[in-house]
Amino acid sequence: MKNTQWIYRKRPLAQVGAEHYELISQEIADDLAKNEVLIEAKYISVDPYMRIQQAESSSWEAPHPLDCVQGSGVVASVLKSKSDAFNEGDWVYAYSGWQTHAIMHAAELTKLNPQQAPVTTALGVLGMPGRTAWFGLTEAGKPKAGDTVVVSAAAGAVGSLVVQFAKLHGAKVIGITGSDNKNRWLSEELGIAHTLNYKRFNGAKDFALALKELTDGVDIYFDNVGGWITDAIIPQINLRGRIIICGQISQYNGGLDRVELSPRFLHHLLYKRATVQGILARDYIHRHDEMLRVVAPMIKSGLLKYTETMVQGFEQLPHALNMLFTGDNVGKMIVAV
Amino acid sequence: MKNTQWIYRKRPLAQVGAEHYELISQEIADDLAKNEVLIEAKYISVDPYMRIQQAESSSWEAPHPLDCVQGSGVVASVLKSKSDAFNEGDWVYAYSGWQTHAIMHAAELTKLNPQQAPVTTALGVLGMPGRTAWFGLTEAGKPKAGDTVVVSAAAGAVGSLVVQFAKLHGAKVIGITGSDNKNRWLSEELGIAHTLNYKRFNGAKDFALALKELTDGVDIYFDNVGGWITDAIIPQINLRGRIIICGQISQYNGGLDRVELSPRFLHHLLYKRATVQGILARDYIHRHDEMLRVVAPMIKSGLLKYTETMVQGFEQLPHALNMLFTGDNVGKMIVAV
Repeated sequence: MKNTQWIYRKRPLAQVGAEHYELISQEIADDLAKNEVLIEAKYISVDPYMRIQQAESSSWEAPHPLDCVQGSGVVASVLKSKSDAFNEGDWVYAYSGWQTHAIMHAAELTKLNPQQAPVTTALGVLGMPGRTAWFGLTEAGKPKAGDTVVVSAAAGAVGSLVVQFAKLHGAKVIGITGSDNKNRWLSEELGIAHTLNYKRFNGAKDFALALKELTDGVDIYFDNVGGWITDAIIPQINLRGRIIICGQISQYNGGLDRVELSPRFLHHLLYKRATVQGILARDYIHRHDEMLRVVAPMIKSGLLKYTETMVQGFEQLPHALNMLFTGDNVGKMIVAV
Repeated sequence: MKNTQWIYRKRPLAQVGAEHYELISQEIADDLAKNEVLIEAKYISVDPYMRIQQAESSSWEAPHPLDCVQGSGVVASVLKSKSDAFNEGDWVYAYSGWQTHAIMHAAELTKLNPQQAPVTTALGVLGMPGRTAWFGLTEAGKPKAGDTVVVSAAAGAVGSLVVQFAKLHGAKVIGITGSDNKNRWLSEELGIAHTLNYKRFNGAKDFALALKELTDGVDIYFDNVGGWITDAIIPQINLRGRIIICGQISQYNGGLDRVELSPRFLHHLLYKRATVQGILARDYIHRHDEMLRVVAPMIKSGLLKYTETMVQGFEQLPHALNMLFTGDNVGKMIVAV
């Protein structure tokens, strides 16, 4: 049997693309040992954190190694199993990366229940992005009814959940995206009344004025993007405000290696006794089931909405990863094999 | 009776000095109403926060108003009292500002006990700076034995207490100052083994290397200065590190109105799930007595050391305030009237 793989060959300096990968195909054995499972990838994830791992000088773990399969979350079906826990045809989640097939130990697989929700949600609202949004907002953000909550990349996989969770907590929500279409979706589909398209503003000063017209101050800023949008928001933080650093996507295409400059802002935190806290999905991995118990019924009942941007074709993976940085996705970006 | 006052007349754009004040003298009545107390200032405080209040564009409350007495904490003796709570000759703390005399309501005065500690400590270790150091470190910093704690302005009124409190908590302490003399004092008098004189380094990169030689990473950074020292330290923060913004003194002489640029660093907080928290003395004012119960015995027993830089002469007040920004003080800066 042939296994097709995207091998990560070369660190990008700016945008990532197909030139940093090589598509190869090789035989995969199907003689399984006890507790091994052969899976076939059906849906493969692309996520912004992948670009952090590609930066040479990020202080986050070691950089993703070259010359091996690009790591990623995958929704797959079981082709063959030597584990009592999995049968042929089962749907599973695995961190098996950008390859069409993989032999995994049963302990590395999570069984998915297609009756609970569409299996692709394991990469989005009921997976890592959902966990990030739920615990990032509730634990680090501590939202209260009446709070003003500003969310950047508000139509993204995490942001589109944060705006809804914040609204469910009784907050006034302001969503920031880079497109009028996304803002229309936020308002018409998710019921987010206040949105700003940062591309319609001439930098931080101009954007700050528009934000000031919408609110007297920001209690929670859930930041997925960083850069000048964040420069505009931090000085508007309220007393004891909470700034959650979930992503800095504006900085990933080069800025981690050749760092951008920003106005110094720590004095604002002093005046307002505000807190900035970095969060990662892994901080809450031991509480994933808790998130599922809360969020899965919200999906089933329609209280919480989600969307996916589905790109067709395994060969599109590097391009789909790049699309995260050019703002081409609404909701969770997934590649269907 | 004559009351001499420093009237704040003009906002400084860079360093503050006598030219921003006017020294005047006017009659003060001594016919007191019930519960009023006439006090004579003996020791007057100068503190870095005063320079923040002078900035036009700080987001911290309204700027200090012009054409009135510069506000400040004062240790005074009672000249005349119409309050049962105070007698002539009592020592008191009051926020009566840069003037030689004042008529205060008894409710605005705190009686000092000269048997407990020298009365000047009400402006330092047993006053606002002591409260800031104690609660800033213990509540926001949450020090644990074995933590690496880095303190900037480590020989200042707050810093010189933070380094000692951190050591008492079993931390490895690294003190940063701008002078070899201060570092010698930290090491010989306070027993702080590791110190760095930032003036001996050629900017953030050079300084970061020296810090790396002293520690594998920073668990707590107690920041009084900001600027490029902070730029060097943040990328070395450890997993779940705590950065406490107590002051940004390097930015006060103009930087609040004409903001400096710095490398973007929020991504480091993401990788390390670190927290930055601004704190102010007022956050803990309701717990001042709790601090006294803990810290006053440490002073009495000699466990905790403190020092004061005493400037002689009421007319020196604006100059003494300026000296805070040129690094001329060790410990608490006080003007003796």
